[in-house]
Amino acid sequence: MKNKKEIFCGIIVIGNEILSGRTQDTNTSTLSIWLNSLGIKVQEVRIIPDVEEEIIKTVNELRKKYNYIFTTGGIGPTHDDITASSISKAFNLTYGPHKEAMSILEKYYKPGEFNEGRQKMAWMPTKANLILNPTSGAPGFNVENVFCLPGVPSILKSMLGGISNKLVGGKPIISNTINLRTVESEISKSLSSVQDNNKDVDIGSYPFFRAGKLGVAIVLRSADQSKIDKCYLEITKFVKEKNIEIVEKP
Amino acid sequence: MKNKKEIFCGIIVIGNEILSGRTQDTNTSTLSIWLNSLGIKVQEVRIIPDVEEEIIKTVNELRKKYNYIFTTGGIGPTHDDITASSISKAFNLTYGPHKEAMSILEKYYKPGEFNEGRQKMAWMPTKANLILNPTSGAPGFNVENVFCLPGVPSILKSMLGGISNKLVGGKPIISNTINLRTVESEISKSLSSVQDNNKDVDIGSYPFFRAGKLGVAIVLRSADQSKIDKCYLEITKFVKEKNIEIVEKP
Repeated sequence: MKNKKEIFCGIIVIGNEILSGRTQDTNTSTLSIWLNSLGIKVQEVRIIPDVEEEIIKTVNELRKKYNYIFTTGGIGPTHDDITASSISKAFNLTYGPHKEAMSILEKYYKPGEFNEGRQKMAWMPTKANLILNPTSGAPGFNVENVFCLPGVPSILKSMLGGISNKLVGGKPIISNTINLRTVESEISKSLSSVQDNNKDVDIGSYPFFRAGKLGVAIVLRSADQSKIDKCYLEITKFVKEKNIEIVEKP
Repeated sequence: MKNKKEIFCGIIVIGNEILSGRTQDTNTSTLSIWLNSLGIKVQEVRIIPDVEEEIIKTVNELRKKYNYIFTTGGIGPTHDDITASSISKAFNLTYGPHKEAMSILEKYYKPGEFNEGRQKMAWMPTKANLILNPTSGAPGFNVENVFCLPGVPSILKSMLGGISNKLVGGKPIISNTINLRTVESEISKSLSSVQDNNKDVDIGSYPFFRAGKLGVAIVLRSADQSKIDKCYLEITKFVKEKNIEIVEKP
């Protein structure tokens, strides 16, 4: 595993409904957790409106910057679903009915029900690779390192299993959490020196409030278990010296 | 109101815990709904890691692009809280103990409890304007058009009331939703021509599943009530023709 390099990814959430606050995005967290498990680190997320120019610009900027890009949203049958046509333009590819997608959807619907609206869901870069959709038929697609998924969280989740084999992951990122019954200011100095001693471990500190009690979750993240273990020991050492209680859950 | 111009805003969510999927961001939706009510439209959100260089670059790019920028996260007492020092660098301002913030926190804590960690929360651009924090004492701040708020959602919410008078809003954006018992592909063509007739109204179409039933929420957004009303009439016309039921809730 030691020779595996780090693999980075960007997520582009496309949708006015997220920017207006009407819909709470949950796809970022779903994708991030899944990508982490494959050893792919999400480095940046952009939430942008359903505007062709913005989609093209953002996709073209990020696809050169990271190993993979995931987009969510905008691949349905209505006028505001412009992800597939925008991706075609970003890659200078023909936008049209995708043969395999047409055939999948034709079989999915009852005879006579495969109307114009539904046919639109088979329009995409004609050379795209499909991402199958076990929930509602209409496939997602990928062009090179850009993977386009729908915005509806339950449908997006059901499509991830079909993508894993298309991705080359890096070292899986291991995470370890220590929950302390304390406040951040009590441990900030000690934690800061642990971070200085362990520059390769990403140490996060997150206050929590639960059932009227305050606490701090310390999250250690690294691709190297032995580095996490060393860090963990240093933290439990100062925690013991300070008489801070370790609790099981936040 | 007619002469009021549009006011745009960007949000920068700072935090490894959001990118790793550990924490679900909810501040974007809180801020967007609140900003909309002031007539400020969120045009873009970036979620970035706790990396100084990324914070400086993103803040300097977006603060020139939009009327206002809001950042969330990274203003606590621990080593991973680097928003205040990064903002100082982005603006080439001195980072140090802010007199007024020091005095607020000194009064907030019991004698002897205002330790080094807590004092760090008063370190920021020394010339920043404070944003008061009625929940936990430690203030946020703004420099020019960049407003820095904490990441903890309940604390962030409690601080918004103190900012409204610092913002100049535009025309408030009005939103109207029609919930239909149908699927998107049934209405996509009709909806598309309503959008063509009403280019100034932002028409969104969002499928929903609730209690085993499918539906579509049509959301109309504009700063002009009469334009929304015209659009609404055109939609209810085709809905009636197609014998589609309008339901009260998604």
